[in-house]
Amino acid sequence: MAKDKKMVTAITSMDEDFAQWYTDICKKAELVEYTSVKGCMVIRPYGYAIWENIQRILDGMFKATGHENVCMPMFIPESLLQKEKDHVEGFAPEVAWVTQGGNEKLEDRLCVRPTSETLFCEHYSNIIHSYRDLPKLYNQWVSVVRWEKTTRPFLRSREFLWQEGHTIHATAEEAIEETERMLNIYAEFCEKSLAMPVVKGKKTESDKFAGAVSTYAIEALMHDGKALQAGTSHYFGDGFAKAFDIEYTDKDNKRVFPHQTSWGVTTRLIGAVIMTHGDDSGLVLPPAVAPIQAVVIPIAQHKEGVLDKAAELLEALKAQGIRAKVDDSENSPGWKFSEYEMKGVPVRIEIGPRDIEEGNCIVATRYNGEKRTVAIDDMPLLVKALLEKDIPEGMFNKAAENRANKTYACTTIDEINKALENGDGFIKAMWCGDEACEDEVKEKTGVGSRCIPFDQEKLSDKCVCCGKPAKCMVYWGKAY
Amino acid sequence: MAKDKKMVTAITSMDEDFAQWYTDICKKAELVEYTSVKGCMVIRPYGYAIWENIQRILDGMFKATGHENVCMPMFIPESLLQKEKDHVEGFAPEVAWVTQGGNEKLEDRLCVRPTSETLFCEHYSNIIHSYRDLPKLYNQWVSVVRWEKTTRPFLRSREFLWQEGHTIHATAEEAIEETERMLNIYAEFCEKSLAMPVVKGKKTESDKFAGAVSTYAIEALMHDGKALQAGTSHYFGDGFAKAFDIEYTDKDNKRVFPHQTSWGVTTRLIGAVIMTHGDDSGLVLPPAVAPIQAVVIPIAQHKEGVLDKAAELLEALKAQGIRAKVDDSENSPGWKFSEYEMKGVPVRIEIGPRDIEEGNCIVATRYNGEKRTVAIDDMPLLVKALLEKDIPEGMFNKAAENRANKTYACTTIDEINKALENGDGFIKAMWCGDEACEDEVKEKTGVGSRCIPFDQEKLSDKCVCCGKPAKCMVYWGKAY
Repeated sequence: MAKDKKMVTAITSMDEDFAQWYTDICKKAELVEYTSVKGCMVIRPYGYAIWENIQRILDGMFKATGHENVCMPMFIPESLLQKEKDHVEGFAPEVAWVTQGGNEKLEDRLCVRPTSETLFCEHYSNIIHSYRDLPKLYNQWVSVVRWEKTTRPFLRSREFLWQEGHTIHATAEEAIEETERMLNIYAEFCEKSLAMPVVKGKKTESDKFAGAVSTYAIEALMHDGKALQAGTSHYFGDGFAKAFDIEYTDKDNKRVFPHQTSWGVTTRLIGAVIMTHGDDSGLVLPPAVAPIQAVVIPIAQHKEGVLDKAAELLEALKAQGIRAKVDDSENSPGWKFSEYEMKGVPVRIEIGPRDIEEGNCIVATRYNGEKRTVAIDDMPLLVKALLEKDIPEGMFNKAAENRANKTYACTTIDEINKALENGDGFIKAMWCGDEACEDEVKEKTGVGSRCIPFDQEKLSDKCVCCGKPAKCMVYWGKAY
Repeated sequence: MAKDKKMVTAITSMDEDFAQWYTDICKKAELVEYTSVKGCMVIRPYGYAIWENIQRILDGMFKATGHENVCMPMFIPESLLQKEKDHVEGFAPEVAWVTQGGNEKLEDRLCVRPTSETLFCEHYSNIIHSYRDLPKLYNQWVSVVRWEKTTRPFLRSREFLWQEGHTIHATAEEAIEETERMLNIYAEFCEKSLAMPVVKGKKTESDKFAGAVSTYAIEALMHDGKALQAGTSHYFGDGFAKAFDIEYTDKDNKRVFPHQTSWGVTTRLIGAVIMTHGDDSGLVLPPAVAPIQAVVIPIAQHKEGVLDKAAELLEALKAQGIRAKVDDSENSPGWKFSEYEMKGVPVRIEIGPRDIEEGNCIVATRYNGEKRTVAIDDMPLLVKALLEKDIPEGMFNKAAENRANKTYACTTIDEINKALENGDGFIKAMWCGDEACEDEVKEKTGVGSRCIPFDQEKLSDKCVCCGKPAKCMVYWGKAY
């Protein structure tokens, strides 16, 4: 039996070694397994089920805003990748090259897509002729490959799953509006479905996507005080259209270039969930994406009536549309408690002979460890309310509090370094807009610019670095 | 305006040139578009929405039978691919090789997965230790790459979308049962959801999957009399387990090898739908997978009340759970009729001023061209019944009739050649089980063995080729 209990062996404490704690959770909660392909992982059923829930919710939001799914090839001919100069410069150094197909050596090498702007552009040039063909609001759910040197499950891997939205519009205004709309959808998804507060903002010039006019991002703060870019939305202007000869005839019969966007989130969001909500007992999942939302644990299950009652509770939970299961395996209740804590199941329901006699059950919530005795008849609606409101709100507030505790407003380089003595966090500081100052802040403090937030504050009139007039407030931090 | 009307230009007649008719539908119904990557295509929104419906239904069937989704890497190291000899012999000649990642030349080349048995095996060897770890019932929805020389949209492409189920079991019996269960699920899906009759059977030895003990398949007959393999299910015995050192400790504490299966269907099913049901007006979609199940076309839509009534009908259809839309664009009704015929929308509802006055609307069904006048209040329930029962049954019967008309029972090679003078079709004929006869039939008649059907008939005692005692009846045909 000892062998079966390996899952419940303790994991590294997050305060002791955050990186090892993260890896332990990935393995012990059975989210991923390593493979012999360096930097690529198996996403196991429990991890993939989280991704399926993320997909389902986001896909619904995309379709509700008029987007359609398509599927492009996974290969990009080298000649096609090279058409937009900034783009190829940004991506060529980190792509995987297919040089042979069957017994045939390829004349034009194919890269495995690191992102698909070039393929979408080629397609647009085939199907867009008139203003009547615009806009096209496309998305695809695929995997992409980037040849990273250092890899970590979910956070940075050579292959990862994502969605990439690609849209093309008649005017710059429409395209900019789309770029902002999708950033807002990502922020809403992260805050509501993942209970993860995010800062919405614009990337500085040095941090833009290769080929973009402007890149927007949502930035979250992890439990250890490091920042994580959770989603990006890019406005391309008509640069790609010009490089790929995409033109349309407008209402006045003139030939003009359309304007484009792209936007994406990845399986990295699972890493963000782990590092935002997890604790030393394991994963803590937001109910909206939890594969199992409530688990029923029978106590003294060999006693008459216990398993029957557990089955009744399960049916009552399912009738409320809750993803629930009973664990009637032969493991002890204590073992089961640990297992579902490790797996981050939001609600645990305990039911034993004495509870049945009293008409009660115990409802425990994972994120705060609270236990309450509840009348069996009231349980399903209570659990539904917990899952839909109390738990996501409580998790969001807890994460927001952590972020507030680790966010520092600073007006000098010294203040930044002083603040960081407490550990990593977000630094809010004014900036003159000069790239040299951005670099100098990083060099002198170790924190880089994360984004120029849409919600601006005026902390001072002067750049934190050079003291010249400030243009905006910037969030700075160390990043995953 | 002429330019916008290109969609409704006529397509090649299927009797005149079936291959061109097929390609015309793929393009004119906006299912796919070609790319500069030879043999790879863009699956456009309307085509991809069909695939999403196929995925949703099949995924539900897989999950209802206990399967879980996972995601394996897209790359397989050459050294891993080589572990099972038959498997590598079958696949190595047709894979794409990644030889460079970023600036690094790879020591162990990576192939882009043509199928993922080897990756699943490596994973099993990491996670399976005891009989308690069995069975594992896995599936993944991904794309795979096979370097085909001749390619056609959906039917044969270098990259295609599919699902690959991979399961591992304690005993041979359980694995064989799984192999059959999944073939039955495929057959049920094809017959109920795609309205496409299939023959269930076993492949001959020469036609097995590389590395399998036995391969089962479902075979369908296309409108032109050619056969199409619509899905396969493989039993591997313990061959892969031995090659990959996958062992488990059974209840008696002995180390034993587990038994495996794999099974898959692909975007080829969309090709099968086109060639089973399509006609000279375009695509004809089975309601279960149609992106739009019913389209409402307003007649004389500028007249007062017409668009309002059309919107009411739309809401009434949606309330029945029907995927419906109104086309209130400025195109003429005739243009719209042609467009939705080309796109294979199962039901068209026409509503104009006179209909409204009389409290009626017109309901037209795509597959048989029937039109009926229906009271507006009765329309939603009637359309629901048509979509759920009458249309799929009618389409199935029409396809079954075509198959029956093109199926010939033959007892000699001469009879086969005579039958084929009428055009391609299924040939049923007895076989001794000898591969030499299988080859000789193909050589002398042009038809190869499709499968040994589970539903056996005894057409004679003798092999159609050599005249020796027959072992079984075989379906023969030319195949896509």
